[in-house]
Amino acid sequence: MSKSVGVVGGGQLARMMIPAAVNLGLDIRVLAENEGDPARLAVTAIGSHLSVEDLLRFGKDVDVLTFDHEHVPQAVLRELVAQGVNVQPGPDALQFAQNKLSMRRRLAELGVPIPDWAGVDTVDELAAFLADHGGAGVLKTATGGYDGKGVRVVRDAADAADWFEAANGETLLVEELVDFRRELAQLVARRPSGEIAYWPVVESLQRDGVCAEVIAPAPNSAGRIADVAADIATTVAESLGVTGVLAVELFETTDDRLLVNELAMRPHNTGHWSIDGSTTSQFEQHLRAVLDLPLGATGCRDDWSVMVNVLGGPLEGSITDRYDVACAEQPTVKFHFYEKAPRPGRKVGHVTSGGDDLDDAVYRARAAAAFFDN
Amino acid sequence: MSKSVGVVGGGQLARMMIPAAVNLGLDIRVLAENEGDPARLAVTAIGSHLSVEDLLRFGKDVDVLTFDHEHVPQAVLRELVAQGVNVQPGPDALQFAQNKLSMRRRLAELGVPIPDWAGVDTVDELAAFLADHGGAGVLKTATGGYDGKGVRVVRDAADAADWFEAANGETLLVEELVDFRRELAQLVARRPSGEIAYWPVVESLQRDGVCAEVIAPAPNSAGRIADVAADIATTVAESLGVTGVLAVELFETTDDRLLVNELAMRPHNTGHWSIDGSTTSQFEQHLRAVLDLPLGATGCRDDWSVMVNVLGGPLEGSITDRYDVACAEQPTVKFHFYEKAPRPGRKVGHVTSGGDDLDDAVYRARAAAAFFDN
Repeated sequence: MSKSVGVVGGGQLARMMIPAAVNLGLDIRVLAENEGDPARLAVTAIGSHLSVEDLLRFGKDVDVLTFDHEHVPQAVLRELVAQGVNVQPGPDALQFAQNKLSMRRRLAELGVPIPDWAGVDTVDELAAFLADHGGAGVLKTATGGYDGKGVRVVRDAADAADWFEAANGETLLVEELVDFRRELAQLVARRPSGEIAYWPVVESLQRDGVCAEVIAPAPNSAGRIADVAADIATTVAESLGVTGVLAVELFETTDDRLLVNELAMRPHNTGHWSIDGSTTSQFEQHLRAVLDLPLGATGCRDDWSVMVNVLGGPLEGSITDRYDVACAEQPTVKFHFYEKAPRPGRKVGHVTSGGDDLDDAVYRARAAAAFFDN
Repeated sequence: MSKSVGVVGGGQLARMMIPAAVNLGLDIRVLAENEGDPARLAVTAIGSHLSVEDLLRFGKDVDVLTFDHEHVPQAVLRELVAQGVNVQPGPDALQFAQNKLSMRRRLAELGVPIPDWAGVDTVDELAAFLADHGGAGVLKTATGGYDGKGVRVVRDAADAADWFEAANGETLLVEELVDFRRELAQLVARRPSGEIAYWPVVESLQRDGVCAEVIAPAPNSAGRIADVAADIATTVAESLGVTGVLAVELFETTDDRLLVNELAMRPHNTGHWSIDGSTTSQFEQHLRAVLDLPLGATGCRDDWSVMVNVLGGPLEGSITDRYDVACAEQPTVKFHFYEKAPRPGRKVGHVTSGGDDLDDAVYRARAAAAFFDN
């Protein structure tokens, strides 16, 4: 009997665990909402991530239960643990990925560098924070936000009255508008028994709040930046008891500090480059880590790896119809598509290039991705 | 709708096409004999590769039908083609992988260098061949042999009387016992529309007629050996109309010639290194080729790649139980297991190492594989 991993959620992150599981000879099973979800090949159960019954039925005979997303409620997670399911990462860690106010509070306690922040319940509280921070801030819902949703730049507190109304009594989070040079991401993996491995810090280019491109390693990061980023992520992983992959999104400020922006406790878009660019991909490492297996080497296979997301995709014809041109023009680029129906702004795939010339790698990845535009 | 590929046979070669199909966003489906076969994740139909009905039902709505093995009979293949199924490689090519006498005859016509050979129907004919070739030869059944089965060294023709009896009127093949320095393999991929790509020639170490280790590229092959190997494989692929991956097993003789030993028209054990060691693996390339998509780059990702088969496997406990030690000791090695039940001599997996120091890469791959011995 192979070791078995149950993945809650059938999205592209679960999908990209499949090749790693096939290689390692692991028994991977996915609980999805729909049979046709991106992880379809490994779907063994259809159900809801909100249902204790569905999750118990699915999780009771796997060696470990892990996740495609962070949306399983705390109460459900705790019931699974109480019933003996091996949940990795566990609810004590996941709470900080599920609630940004809890995350800010905990990181502040730990002394991890973060933007100035406050919990705000009223327009007046927000106005006071803005007044103290140059008249601007970033307002966020504590829960449920992703890919730019639930995040809004505010310069006049009155404009946010609708959000306080919609929050329905839930405290909102406001953060200073950080003057940053660029965004970075530091990914680490941690086993329940403690071993940690990290990839080099990467640079992430966002467009409209969504990750568009990643360069690994981040240019001009060797030395202090790489060390500080790894230290921060290691501290967070250990202090919060994270298992599996942890992504720490960072701001590199114009005055040379690194501040933690967001946390994700799962494989992350900023780590997709590692499938082709690292000895051990984030997906393989996540499986090793949640199974408490020794972690793989995280060295880079190329001087530079460049990942470009394919957002939207062709609205007519099929994605794979574009291969006739894309593969011919870019024979060195690795293509990754998730079998998702194209829709404006939707992440339907990504491409990765590698090499010793960064400009050339960026050119090839962008050129390859562009063949899949509408 | 993604492009779809139907694979006949659910063994490890079909299994290793799954990660490539997942990455490319292709719809991969497998016709297997048993639900639990190695390619289980992609199995959509259970049936026999000998049944026209099973294959027609499976093949009628895929863009291309291809193979995990070469055992679908010619008559069945030709009926599929007649019914409009896009079979790649087609029967005209596959006949030469299915019948070693046909293969020898055709390669001789093409002037491709091969060992001396003859078709023999009697002990006397065999004795005459042996007398002309230093008293020794390799006797082979024309069909059905693999991994050392159906192959036998003969020094006294009378010893082979049982084979002539068992052959039941089918002509046997005898070949000279080649005085070779080492065995090589040249893999190429070819699209129906003609494009060809090849990987570097590799060295293959056989034990008991079974591939045990592969070094890519073959040491001391740059220049003449690489050129001749690529020329031979290109000639064979084009002349025989092969599509998908073609593996040409070669002898490098002590007098510096390359002779074709065997052909396989599918991904091959001597190409497993390419999963981790080449920009485009043989499995991805096979899918691209049979779909008539532009082929990927075939450069090496490391100076040296070393593949070591895991034969047999642990007879007690599970293969993945060995990861606690194997992954800890060899963090840079890539593990590949096929979820096959261990059995003496059975190919249950392989491991691959890479790097710029061949001795070190050989050491790491052998050390990693050894953890999975009984």
